[in-house]
Amino acid sequence: MTDVRELTVGVLGGTGAQGRGLAVRWAHAGLRVVIGSRSADRAQTAASEIAEISGGDVTGADNAACAAASDLVLAAVPWDAHEPTLTTVRAEVAGKIVVDCVNPLGFDKQGPYALPVSEGSAAQQAEALLPDSRVTAAFHHVSAVSLADLSVELVDLDVLVLGDDREATDTVRALADVIPGVRGVYGGRLRNAHQVEALTANIIAINRRYKAHAGLRITDV
Amino acid sequence: MTDVRELTVGVLGGTGAQGRGLAVRWAHAGLRVVIGSRSADRAQTAASEIAEISGGDVTGADNAACAAASDLVLAAVPWDAHEPTLTTVRAEVAGKIVVDCVNPLGFDKQGPYALPVSEGSAAQQAEALLPDSRVTAAFHHVSAVSLADLSVELVDLDVLVLGDDREATDTVRALADVIPGVRGVYGGRLRNAHQVEALTANIIAINRRYKAHAGLRITDV
Repeated sequence: MTDVRELTVGVLGGTGAQGRGLAVRWAHAGLRVVIGSRSADRAQTAASEIAEISGGDVTGADNAACAAASDLVLAAVPWDAHEPTLTTVRAEVAGKIVVDCVNPLGFDKQGPYALPVSEGSAAQQAEALLPDSRVTAAFHHVSAVSLADLSVELVDLDVLVLGDDREATDTVRALADVIPGVRGVYGGRLRNAHQVEALTANIIAINRRYKAHAGLRITDV
Repeated sequence: MTDVRELTVGVLGGTGAQGRGLAVRWAHAGLRVVIGSRSADRAQTAASEIAEISGGDVTGADNAACAAASDLVLAAVPWDAHEPTLTTVRAEVAGKIVVDCVNPLGFDKQGPYALPVSEGSAAQQAEALLPDSRVTAAFHHVSAVSLADLSVELVDLDVLVLGDDREATDTVRALADVIPGVRGVYGGRLRNAHQVEALTANIIAINRRYKAHAGLRITDV
């Protein structure tokens, strides 16, 4: 397996909270990071800020250029941008590992809830849209606040990594392991991604009840 | 809130592994337990065994008599018996807390996967079938093996407790807390039960990969 610290990671939707938080940690760990956005200008602005916070090598580009420049691509876009964004980068991510961390959630006065996805999950939609890529799902439950704040020395959670390609899930687990405190744990096949995405609604409910930044740990592993 | 150690807990499907394991722990903690089964004979046989293991007060009855004799009822039946069993006990559980721990799962050569449920989840099906009860969902991920083996001194996991009735979820959290090592954590509204049930497929996949009895812990809570 490749040493993940040698990789260039593209973060589609890297101007959002979740992508930005992961970009901070990866850049801080020494990976090259390319922030992607629909607007190259906004991507470059975010990249400058993330480079400043992390002290790392971070550049910005539009989503297609971000995907083309990267060895591995994280899809961290809002759910309503998921399908159009992935469709745009299909050629650029061919042959590459794609990590989907998107949580299709709705919110109403009772709080968060899981949205139905016709393909079963965001990750399975990615697999359908990107047949030439190695699609995995991970990083659904990470607290963007804890990630972006490097004064949080240990991020206290396990990252469930799902996928049907053993080498790809091993690489993504290693990508989790570079964040201090975090451990990547294999979490099942891609067809079991829906419940991991949807569980984010429960974690938000837990955060509200306990005023916490809750995460999961897997015991006996 | 009632001291849960004063309660009589009915375990519908208490002859199965999950119900049996919980019954062992509750009886060992001093709660009165009534094992329910379609067959009163099989229930009484299981009750005698559980009384022997736990040193507790355990009796057996058919499901309706079990529900009638109990203050709080756990539904631990196989998924294909869920609807018929709950329909049978509707009158007996009126006004009572019902705890649903059923995981609607299928298995094929690729392993476990979540089955679709028209009501959204087993717990929501229970809510629809038992409109006069206080339906909660919990104990989905407990390892029956670790529960039934009292030489396991600390069962290392948190139990997510879901429901829309605060006093009911608090009571069920206390019911989790009586098991040494276990902590009951509020896990969201009943409409977010599907993903907690379905996550059992991922936990089985984790158990297979890592040869573990995996459980969840919630960090920062």
